[in-house]
Parts: sequence; structure tokens; C-alpha cells
Amino acid sequence: MQKTDDVIRVAFLGPPGTFSHAAVDRAFSEDGRTLDYHSVASIDDVFLDVEAGQSDFGVVPVENSTEGAVNTTLDCLIDTSLSIVGEVFIPIEHNLLLQPGADMVDVRRIVSHKQSLGQCRLWLRSHYPDIELLDVSSNAEAARLAAEDPSTAAIAGLKAAELYGLNVVVAGIQDRRNNTTRFLTLARVRNTQPSGADKTSIIVYAENKPGSLFRLLEPFDRFQVSLTRLETRPARDDMWSYVFFIDFEGHSDDAAVKQVFSQLTERVVKIKNLGSYTRASS
Amino acid sequence: MQKTDDVIRVAFLGPPGTFSHAAVDRAFSEDGRTLDYHSVASIDDVFLDVEAGQSDFGVVPVENSTEGAVNTTLDCLIDTSLSIVGEVFIPIEHNLLLQPGADMVDVRRIVSHKQSLGQCRLWLRSHYPDIELLDVSSNAEAARLAAEDPSTAAIAGLKAAELYGLNVVVAGIQDRRNNTTRFLTLARVRNTQPSGADKTSIIVYAENKPGSLFRLLEPFDRFQVSLTRLETRPARDDMWSYVFFIDFEGHSDDAAVKQVFSQLTERVVKIKNLGSYTRASS
Repeated sequence: MQKTDDVIRVAFLGPPGTFSHAAVDRAFSEDGRTLDYHSVASIDDVFLDVEAGQSDFGVVPVENSTEGAVNTTLDCLIDTSLSIVGEVFIPIEHNLLLQPGADMVDVRRIVSHKQSLGQCRLWLRSHYPDIELLDVSSNAEAARLAAEDPSTAAIAGLKAAELYGLNVVVAGIQDRRNNTTRFLTLARVRNTQPSGADKTSIIVYAENKPGSLFRLLEPFDRFQVSLTRLETRPARDDMWSYVFFIDFEGHSDDAAVKQVFSQLTERVVKIKNLGSYTRASS
Repeated sequence: MQKTDDVIRVAFLGPPGTFSHAAVDRAFSEDGRTLDYHSVASIDDVFLDVEAGQSDFGVVPVENSTEGAVNTTLDCLIDTSLSIVGEVFIPIEHNLLLQPGADMVDVRRIVSHKQSLGQCRLWLRSHYPDIELLDVSSNAEAARLAAEDPSTAAIAGLKAAELYGLNVVVAGIQDRRNNTTRFLTLARVRNTQPSGADKTSIIVYAENKPGSLFRLLEPFDRFQVSLTRLETRPARDDMWSYVFFIDFEGHSDDAAVKQVFSQLTERVVKIKNLGSYTRASS
């Protein structure tokens, strides 16, 4: 991630205050340069913005520990020329937020994104069974509404609380513990320096015939390269054929990984190397 | 699917006129018994309705050739006690529909589900760039609106056209050809008769350690049992561990499949057999 400028521009799925926004902070927490946050309207737009050179980096969600793969991101990775240069894990923690000085006894409605209301359903039912629930376009929008009106409480993450100057009335109100989202950092230039604790992501196009998945996994087993994830998506050009997204431990400069690549090349139609990057702890 | 009654009740994702409704017709086209269609509000409700014995069968979408897996269905399959007893493929064809006697020159708006409008975007832009587009809750609802108003055209499938007495003005207007959805038929009782052209679906819970996916695929390779699909979903009880949905050719009564099961049992934590059923052609 070497760059001479002191300011770097990072595109993410907005509005400001989302968990993607928090992921940008985490991804660049040790970078030292000043961040120019660029909030865009969709995951596709994050890719386009970085590809066009309007932002230096992009941050996108790729997987949630409960909900699984973010398909839009996987489909964008098929077409993109960008490389993955990093990953971060962000715990999806919901909090009940209020204006400073406001009191829950005066609250008449709780607002949040529909999905967040759903993730706090049991908690809301047992604590505030009689308050109106209103779903809005994002948790950040909910926080904005709470900042304007003392009778409105928002459910959102800490980043939104910070941004809209709200107090955390109750922290961690989501029904399911251990809900974490993995985000990827994308850039136009590949990060080629091994850190000693790396991960590599590839897309494999295999022949649509019996045993092809088994044969493409065999080199990983032979050279003791550990798969961390395998995801299947439809190949857009051929009905009922698939591409495989494979994450594994190691860097593409490692001897074992080079051997895996060499054997894979003989067994599959095409490999797209998305990049090697430092492994994050969840 | 033996049952003495002459009427069978089938639950599906409604409202009537959806592609799920068309899948029910296709799935039971050779059944001979009278169908009592039971339209429910969600995929979860299809499972619940059949589990509770209120319907004899349920029909749910499991995979689209362009969009990939239907995650809600996969997650319901983890928890259900139901078996898969059949599959059908339904081409997702969109048509421009009007009241009989109405004329496109009088049409002021085209209505459909947001996703369908998106799937016909290029066609709409080149043929009707100036007509208002309105998204509604389902294609069936769009058809209902067109049946009430000659200045409204709907985009929907043939089932909706038939149900609401609409004429097909232009057929097959979706931008992408080869868009097909695979549906499963579910029942409380397992269908145990091999047909000679069968498929089996299982869920495999593997240990979260290096090489486990490779080891669980090995028996399929050894006994020449062809995988037709592998899908990954998060295991709900353990963060960043996964369950594998595997479809393969053959019936659980086949000798080769029995050997695969026997070897798999020694290699994985748990196998859930979802059932064997006659393979459908796409």
C-alpha cells in the first residue's frame, strides 16, 4: 500500500455511519495517512469508483458469519480488474441510541433498517413490546432521525452513534451473538509483499464434468495448502455451470502455493488470481 | 407419492400466478390427482405448512441459473424434517401483458416486481423509453392491476397471464436468455423407489480443519458418483464454520451410493440425507 500522497481516498457503501464505514476505519487504522471517505450508493459503485481511479481503495463486505456470502461482491469480483489487498472483520453489534439528554420514557418510536430490526426482534419484544417500530433505508439514516427528535430512538452501530452525536442507551442488543462481517480492501495495484501470515483468493473456472471439483482440490491437499473457504456461484455464460471462489492460507510467492498454481493450471479452464493479503483475525 | 385421496394440497410461495405456482403445475402434471393450491406468504411458511400436515406437499425455489442459490431454502433444509421427493426446472420468461382489447398505444405505465423490471431493463429502454415504470410486490399483483386497467401493462409469466385473463403482447422480453429456476418438491414421507435416473441431496457437516472438504469429496471420486452441485452455507452454531449442500447422481439404494455413505460417515461429523428423487431435465 505504498503511496507518496498524504491523503488517500477510500470508497465504501454509504451513507456515512454504516458498518462499511467502520470497516474503512479498521482497514486503515495503522496506515498513517489521512482518509478521504467517499460514500457511494452500491457495492458495484465501489468497484467502479476504484477502477476509474476516482478512489485509491475500496472496501466491500464479502461474507457474514450468519448470512453467508455477499453475492453482489462475488459477482463483481468475477469482472473486476482490481486486486484484494486486505481483509478486516467487523462485529455486527446493534445498540439502542438516543440524543444526549433524551430519556427512553419519552420515546414513541424505534427506527432502524428492516434487517437490523429483525436481528433485534426478541430483544425488542421483551423490552419495548408497545413502541412503534419503523424501518428506514439504513441504520445511519435511523441515527440521523434520532439526532433530530428526542422521541425517536435508533438502532445502529457505534460508528453511526459517533457520527450523529448519540448516546448508547443499551449496547449489543442483537439477538444473535457472534455476528461478524468480513470486508475486503480493493486496489488497482497488487500488494506483492508477503507478511508471513497471508491469505490468497482465487476464482477457478472448472470444466462442468464429474469429478472436476475433486481434481481441483487435490493439489491443495498434496502441497498442504489449507483452504479457508470455498464458495460456488453460477458462471454467467453457461447455464448450470459454476465458478468456485477459493480462499487459502499462504502467499502467491510461497513455494507451495506456486506448486498448487502450476498443477491447477493443468486441471482447470482458467484461474483468476485476486491477490494475496495479510490475514486478519476474526 | 402414493396417497389414497383424490385431492392433494400443495403449498407454494404466492400469490397465485408466481413462477412457484407454475412449478406446482409442472411438478404434478402427471400425478392424476386434483390439486388444492395453497398459496402462502414466505418460503419458511411452505416448510411449516407441510411439516404441520396442513399441506401434503410443498414446492420451493432452490437455485436460479443466473442468481445462484436461494439461501432461505437452504437454511430451511438444515432444520426441516421434510424430504425432497422431486425437482422441476421452470424457465423464467417475462412477457408484456395487456387486457384483451386494450392497445399498447393507450398504455401509460408498465408495472412489475422490481427484479423483473430489472431483468427486462434493456428491452424496456429500447422499446418503451418514455413509459412510466412502476414496481409492485409481485408479478402476480402486476397482472391483477393490468386486468383492472387498460392503460396499465404488466410484465409477468404465462401463469399470471392465464390466471388474470391477459393477452401476451410480446413474449420472452427478458434481457438474458437461459434464465431458469430449479424448484424442489417436499413431503413428510420419503420417496424410496429408484427410477433409474435419480439424484440424491445431502447436507454434510465437516470438521472445520484443513483438507476436510477434499476428504469428504474423495469417496465420490473413488466410487464414480457424480456431483451435480456443491453449495456452502454458514453453520449457525459456530462462527466461520460451514455446512456443505451436495447433490449427486444416483439413489441412496444404489450400491455405489451406499459405499459413499459408508466412507463419508467415517470422515465427517454428520450427514443429513434429504432424499433421493427422479432427476428432471433442465
